[in-house]
Amino acid sequence: MTVTLSATLATNEDIERRRRAGERVLHLAFGEAGLPVHPALRDRLIDASGRNGYGPVAGAAGLREAAAGYWTRRGLATDPEQVIAGPGSKSLLYGLLLVLGGDIALPKPSWVSYAAQADLVGSRAILVPATEGGVPDPDLLAQVGPNVKAVLVTLPDNPTGRLATPETILRLVEVARAKDLLIISDEIYRDLVHDPALPYLSPADLAPERTIVTTGLSKSLALGGWRIGVARLPDGAHEMRRQLLAVASEIWSAPAAPVQEAAAYGFAEPPEIVEHIELSRRLHGKVSNAVYERFIAAGVPVAKPQGGFYLYPDFGVSNITKILLEDHGIGVLPGQAFGDDPSSGRVRVATSLLYGEHTDERWAALTSDDPLNLPWIAANLDHLDAALSALTWENGSFA
Amino acid sequence: MTVTLSATLATNEDIERRRRAGERVLHLAFGEAGLPVHPALRDRLIDASGRNGYGPVAGAAGLREAAAGYWTRRGLATDPEQVIAGPGSKSLLYGLLLVLGGDIALPKPSWVSYAAQADLVGSRAILVPATEGGVPDPDLLAQVGPNVKAVLVTLPDNPTGRLATPETILRLVEVARAKDLLIISDEIYRDLVHDPALPYLSPADLAPERTIVTTGLSKSLALGGWRIGVARLPDGAHEMRRQLLAVASEIWSAPAAPVQEAAAYGFAEPPEIVEHIELSRRLHGKVSNAVYERFIAAGVPVAKPQGGFYLYPDFGVSNITKILLEDHGIGVLPGQAFGDDPSSGRVRVATSLLYGEHTDERWAALTSDDPLNLPWIAANLDHLDAALSALTWENGSFA
Repeated sequence: MTVTLSATLATNEDIERRRRAGERVLHLAFGEAGLPVHPALRDRLIDASGRNGYGPVAGAAGLREAAAGYWTRRGLATDPEQVIAGPGSKSLLYGLLLVLGGDIALPKPSWVSYAAQADLVGSRAILVPATEGGVPDPDLLAQVGPNVKAVLVTLPDNPTGRLATPETILRLVEVARAKDLLIISDEIYRDLVHDPALPYLSPADLAPERTIVTTGLSKSLALGGWRIGVARLPDGAHEMRRQLLAVASEIWSAPAAPVQEAAAYGFAEPPEIVEHIELSRRLHGKVSNAVYERFIAAGVPVAKPQGGFYLYPDFGVSNITKILLEDHGIGVLPGQAFGDDPSSGRVRVATSLLYGEHTDERWAALTSDDPLNLPWIAANLDHLDAALSALTWENGSFA
Repeated sequence: MTVTLSATLATNEDIERRRRAGERVLHLAFGEAGLPVHPALRDRLIDASGRNGYGPVAGAAGLREAAAGYWTRRGLATDPEQVIAGPGSKSLLYGLLLVLGGDIALPKPSWVSYAAQADLVGSRAILVPATEGGVPDPDLLAQVGPNVKAVLVTLPDNPTGRLATPETILRLVEVARAKDLLIISDEIYRDLVHDPALPYLSPADLAPERTIVTTGLSKSLALGGWRIGVARLPDGAHEMRRQLLAVASEIWSAPAAPVQEAAAYGFAEPPEIVEHIELSRRLHGKVSNAVYERFIAAGVPVAKPQGGFYLYPDFGVSNITKILLEDHGIGVLPGQAFGDDPSSGRVRVATSLLYGEHTDERWAALTSDDPLNLPWIAANLDHLDAALSALTWENGSFA
């Protein structure tokens, strides 16, 4: 097995080193939600600070019930027995790949860790171009070989910020049925779709018998550092559950017990949490769309973001990541990290670290009706504008 | 890959089911420390409840510094760069096995998860009989094949509760050098050696260039449910560090951020924490030795426990685990779970869940000069006595 340091890790280390050296670097390379913890979640963590037992590998009963309710409220009736919690949905995805075996079809581009995880468990990642972000083109998926046992989708998507249409999900499910593929649906950005009116269809709505859904609170409630995710297995998938628990038991045991208590509160979606997520969605939408407009104004092709806090512009030149960082103090990730061609000029831009460096700035951003005019956000956007202007000016193209 | 549910998980589920059904079951099957969280650690978790960023994959700087200090105070000069934190030392051990590859020599018997982890990463576990608990017999280790890349030791040991002597560690290191083996030294019970005068030698003291040490706060500070462990890599092992970080980044990211803050306090060993661990060690020693004396009085061969909260008696009959649970309401794990022969009559007895069911009972046990006479502990020991008497009486042997 060869283990390579992820582009995310390497880029973030580079950015941090530059910042420590006093450089001003606009950090658009990291998928951290960039918002504070809701006080009610802190209170639940505090209340649970005496909990130190290992607890069930599947997660505490209260957490599994809350997560089951979360899905049931979204039209996907769920029994707590179908839920397994882990220290981040990332760990659950790893465990699933380990358990499922076989090749896995991934959208191209897709989140950096899917292919890296497949490599770690000895599976082959088959990258299938995604016409809509996050979902392999169903017509191309229909052509993958018989070793492919599962297909993974991201709804809405990282890195493109796009949400696949119900029509595409319908076709995906048809192909999955025809080829007897399991579907892993990573829905960690689901509650951050900017426009609540946009139709959201999960493959689990159509094919619950073959779909595993994963989510977590890292993005919607900015709890990345708390490490909490949940997986919803198909009803009756007892053998899959048994195997995933066996793997979980040998690798991570369970999420941190106090965190599980807070997460149970989050997944129960009391009004204050719902409102907090609504504010977050509003902010992510406003800022990512402001960045979108700046790219468009500068002539950089990019799809309009629909969810989360990402954009995936195409600068047309392959060394753009290096140019942006070294000449303009802007850190982004190259499309190559997401499985795109090395010659691609696409980069992933994460807008969530624009909200401020400190908690008070982030609270102000979250609660502001006009976050784009907060001085620190405006300054960050100006930094981006300046870079885009300079890029265009220098060569008459984006370099 | 075949994934089997661990004996620990299956046994614990069985015990919990029986308890829910109203059976009285003495739970001696689980390696949970059975003690409360120190209030200072709760305070640190509470203070850090606003920390929600992902943070460095290696762990927060403060945690790595504290862990480096922990080892340095034990005569093993450590730079924070050598330290990697994970959500439990279990996850770090898994990551190490994944990175190291090749076969791994394990003591027979040894902790249930080592061989299971080796299986998950596709390595072969070579079980080498341990003359002293936790360390493969060096003469036998000298005979393992060239595919073995590493040897793992547990100091002091789970399941035997024994601490290998400095002489054995010396011979182990000689063999490791001769065969160019890495040594993984799981020292999670180190601070729970009952007699502080017992000489403790880590392979890292003799061969720091080839020894990786793992530890955590699950046992000494009863933080199993908080999921925090640390690994100390050899000085200058940059490639190993890079690979372990890459694996960590794709599987678990980092331990929960608030937990890292509390753990930094724990590893810094302020006086109140040192005293708490001393009280824990005293309690574990008293109770495990009381159980030892009962086994000896009943004629059950067992080595005197020296660390942690385990004993490994030999009942001489292979179905003893079933008999103890079904006929006497005592849950233990069969030696087979630890790699021992299926025909073995050995079982692992964990004594730490004898301290009480509730936090107040556990505090009382911890601070008592005479814990054996606390009513609930006395009742638990009586339960054990009754079973041992009945076993002896029934057949004139241990069945």
